[in-house]
Amino acid sequence: MSQDQARAGGLFITFEGIDGSGKSTQSRRLADSLRAKGRDVVLTREPGGSPGAEEIRALVLEGDPDRWSAETEILLFTAARRDHLERTILPALAAGKVVICDRFADSTRVYQGVSRGDLRGMVDQLHALMIGREPDLTLLIDMDPDTGHTRALARKGHEERFEDFGPDLQRRMRAAFLGLAQEFPARVRVIDGNRGIDEVAADVGATVHEALA
Amino acid sequence: MSQDQARAGGLFITFEGIDGSGKSTQSRRLADSLRAKGRDVVLTREPGGSPGAEEIRALVLEGDPDRWSAETEILLFTAARRDHLERTILPALAAGKVVICDRFADSTRVYQGVSRGDLRGMVDQLHALMIGREPDLTLLIDMDPDTGHTRALARKGHEERFEDFGPDLQRRMRAAFLGLAQEFPARVRVIDGNRGIDEVAADVGATVHEALA
Ligand SMILES: Nc1ncnc2c1ncn2[C@@H]1O[C@H](COP(=O)(O)OP(=O)(O)OP(=O)(O)O)[C@@H](O)[C@H]1O
Ligand SMILES: Nc1ncnc2c1ncn2[C@@H]1O[C@H](COP(=O)(O)OP(=O)(O)OP(=O)(O)O)[C@@H](O)[C@H]1O
Ligand SMILES: [Mg+2]
Ligand SMILES: [Mg+2]
Repeated sequence: MSQDQARAGGLFITFEGIDGSGKSTQSRRLADSLRAKGRDVVLTREPGGSPGAEEIRALVLEGDPDRWSAETEILLFTAARRDHLERTILPALAAGKVVICDRFADSTRVYQGVSRGDLRGMVDQLHALMIGREPDLTLLIDMDPDTGHTRALARKGHEERFEDFGPDLQRRMRAAFLGLAQEFPARVRVIDGNRGIDEVAADVGATVHEALA
Repeated sequence: MSQDQARAGGLFITFEGIDGSGKSTQSRRLADSLRAKGRDVVLTREPGGSPGAEEIRALVLEGDPDRWSAETEILLFTAARRDHLERTILPALAAGKVVICDRFADSTRVYQGVSRGDLRGMVDQLHALMIGREPDLTLLIDMDPDTGHTRALARKGHEERFEDFGPDLQRRMRAAFLGLAQEFPARVRVIDGNRGIDEVAADVGATVHEALA
């Protein structure tokens, strides 16, 4: 049995970072590499991650964009996260698996906090009351927002509205993610995402290996 | 202008009590009688009360009864209540109307608290954080659970499961509602519901008249 497998209990790893920073790419790479080493891995993501959470998410996204207030949306997202946690994440951790989650509560903190500063406190209080669990390790893929912008446009074409990927918003979100790294230094590791996929994956792999040891 | 109309701002009145105690009957009666006196009245109810709240409610009720945990359900109900408050209740109160709501947060406190004692604290914390507003006046229609049981069976026929209306559960809920009257003496008035509809309505009318004065 390898040192990695010997660790008792599961490990909850999240990927965070601005749009197009490589979270989904690196989540898959990490899952593949841990599986190749014999680890039992559950790869999941937010929004979504359980059938109930997907349905709540669909309800939020359907219809007029103004039909829910920011506060109601936060409640619905918290309900979705609670379901995801109970049905997918906690059972896998209890079975000793590694759970890799592509975005989690830090994304909500950043998105809501950047859109309206006073919402950050509400998100945190709801999290403390109804979610509680923080990741054991968060890999924050940090990158230059202009590069992320170019990648996102290349991937999504021109169908998405420009503002969704605007560099100014991405700059503010990058700053907010880096703020979380300072706020939670014990669990958040900043990974330089301005490099090729293999280089980033090697850095991620080394960081996770250390955490598993 | 009557004394009732002279009161500045709206008045938020809720009806509470065990199943079949006469909440819906008395809500309608009170709305009719206040309208006859020239008051602008919004009659609403929970669960529901706004289009968004109805959709959230439908999501909770669809499918397997075990598919949401009690905690996720409380989050979804709180999201529905937030929507109802923002879209229906607060705008009407701001316009100086009387809002009569058939069930509100006290029903959640009682139902969740009776089903699992530890949930009452969670309901209260979520309420404090995300709802905040308490009614100005709560009319608790108190009645003998056996009478309520008989009324409910007569009304609903035998299609509903017996346990939903079981007298033992209703007795525990009655006690929990009376506990709320002790906890919130400033806003909760206990109305004896073991009387004919007209007698109860007269009592309700006098209590509301006093509150409006
Ligand atoms: N290190 C990299 N160098 C160049 N391109 C990359 C790199 N990492 C990912 N990409 C590409 O950039 C695009 C965005 O990557 P990916 O989907 O992994 O990002 P993401 O952070 O999950 O984005 P989103 O926030 O939109 O979910 C994809 O087309 C991906 O192939
Ligand atoms: N004071 C009363 N005396 C006799 N019957 C009554 C009285 N009040 C209401 N009823 C009848 O009892 C039944 C239940 O009344 P109602 O629907 O108003 O209760 P409710 O508290 O809203 O019930 P639920 O909790 O199920 O919504 C109805 O058929 C109604 O006509
Ligand atoms: Mg992604
Ligand atoms: Mg009713």
